Amino acid sequence: MQHKIVILDGYTENPGDLSWDGFAELGDVTVYDRTPSDLIAQRIADADIVITNKTPLTGETIKNAEKMQYIGVLATGYNVVDVMAAKEKGVVVTNIPTYGTDAVAQFVFALLLEICHHVQHHSDAVKEGRWSKAPDFCFWDYPLIELVGKTMGIIGYGRIGQATGRIAKAFGMKVIAYDSYQNPELKDDYVSLDTLLSESDVIALHCPLFS
Amino acid sequence: MQHKIVILDGYTENPGDLSWDGFAELGDVTVYDRTPSDLIAQRIADADIVITNKTPLTGETIKNAEKMQYIGVLATGYNVVDVMAAKEKGVVVTNIPTYGTDAVAQFVFALLLEICHHVQHHSDAVKEGRWSKAPDFCFWDYPLIELVGKTMGIIGYGRIGQATGRIAKAFGMKVIAYDSYQNPELKDDYVSLDTLLSESDVIALHCPLFS
Repeated sequence: MQHKIVILDGYTENPGDLSWDGFAELGDVTVYDRTPSDLIAQRIADADIVITNKTPLTGETIKNAEKMQYIGVLATGYNVVDVMAAKEKGVVVTNIPTYGTDAVAQFVFALLLEICHHVQHHSDAVKEGRWSKAPDFCFWDYPLIELVGKTMGIIGYGRIGQATGRIAKAFGMKVIAYDSYQNPELKDDYVSLDTLLSESDVIALHCPLFS
Repeated sequence: MQHKIVILDGYTENPGDLSWDGFAELGDVTVYDRTPSDLIAQRIADADIVITNKTPLTGETIKNAEKMQYIGVLATGYNVVDVMAAKEKGVVVTNIPTYGTDAVAQFVFALLLEICHHVQHHSDAVKEGRWSKAPDFCFWDYPLIELVGKTMGIIGYGRIGQATGRIAKAFGMKVIAYDSYQNPELKDDYVSLDTLLSESDVIALHCPLFS
């Protein structure tokens, strides 16, 4: 059987620098850059394989998709799919839990260090001549924030949360974490949610969106 | 004997949020916010203790400072002091090698992550409505740079360089280092300067300015 594969919102995953050829080897592929909600049902009507990133596949959409056998989510969070409806219909749903672990953890510190240092603001100020005109060898428009010794609370301590925790520790931060599932190897890091909220200087959210 | 203590450029160290009282316990203290070069000799003429941050104490200044017994540098780098002239005169010179280790290493990544993510630029763009108007759930004006797997070369692998290296490793970077002094415990990190320059994606300079 030739699979019929529909990719509902391929643009953000592949704006032109990647290739869909791997899918083409598995069947007949149609890639849509984006799919507005009123076109979802029509576009997947003949597909046994449906690929989505952020286009929602509700319980009703899944029930009405007669050929559907598999939903591949091009993301880590799979809240766009009604997984209970998929389970009832026997449709397999997969996500991609590890494609962005390091990138997300890195981004946490890009955001945090922006607050701590305001690099672009000071770079712009230097280029406007502020440093040249300063009476001292340094100037600053915001108080700098030092991370060492501060506490980072991580809510959702899975792969991404743990990667964030490793970086936080390298910055000299104390790391505390909350998760409904606890990894025995990291047992010293876990605290209650109340403790985390009351003791953290910074809180990072790394939990999936469960409906 | 009552010490006469002169602080030549106290403003950047203490713009008002710290106290000089610790010095006052040791003698008679005069704090200048800044000292232009033509006033240095006159201001330290009676001082046995001279404190500087960036105000230069040249060989000639030191030779002519008859009472001088001690120079305290309020910084890590001590290139503002002619240490050979101080040694000849028997003047003790101290610096503060560890006051900013973590802060400097943190700042390295604030600068690097600005290049990787341009957080303020994208924040401004979102506030201008770019995200609300975007046809997709994400947009970017610069390609994002992921650090994992990239190589950071550290020239000057002392306390600050090593702190930078620990953070780089937590980001998943490969760390290579060059230093004229090699710490046996870090021997796997050292490479020649030529190798460092040819293999590094990012280079961090953490060496003192030796004249």
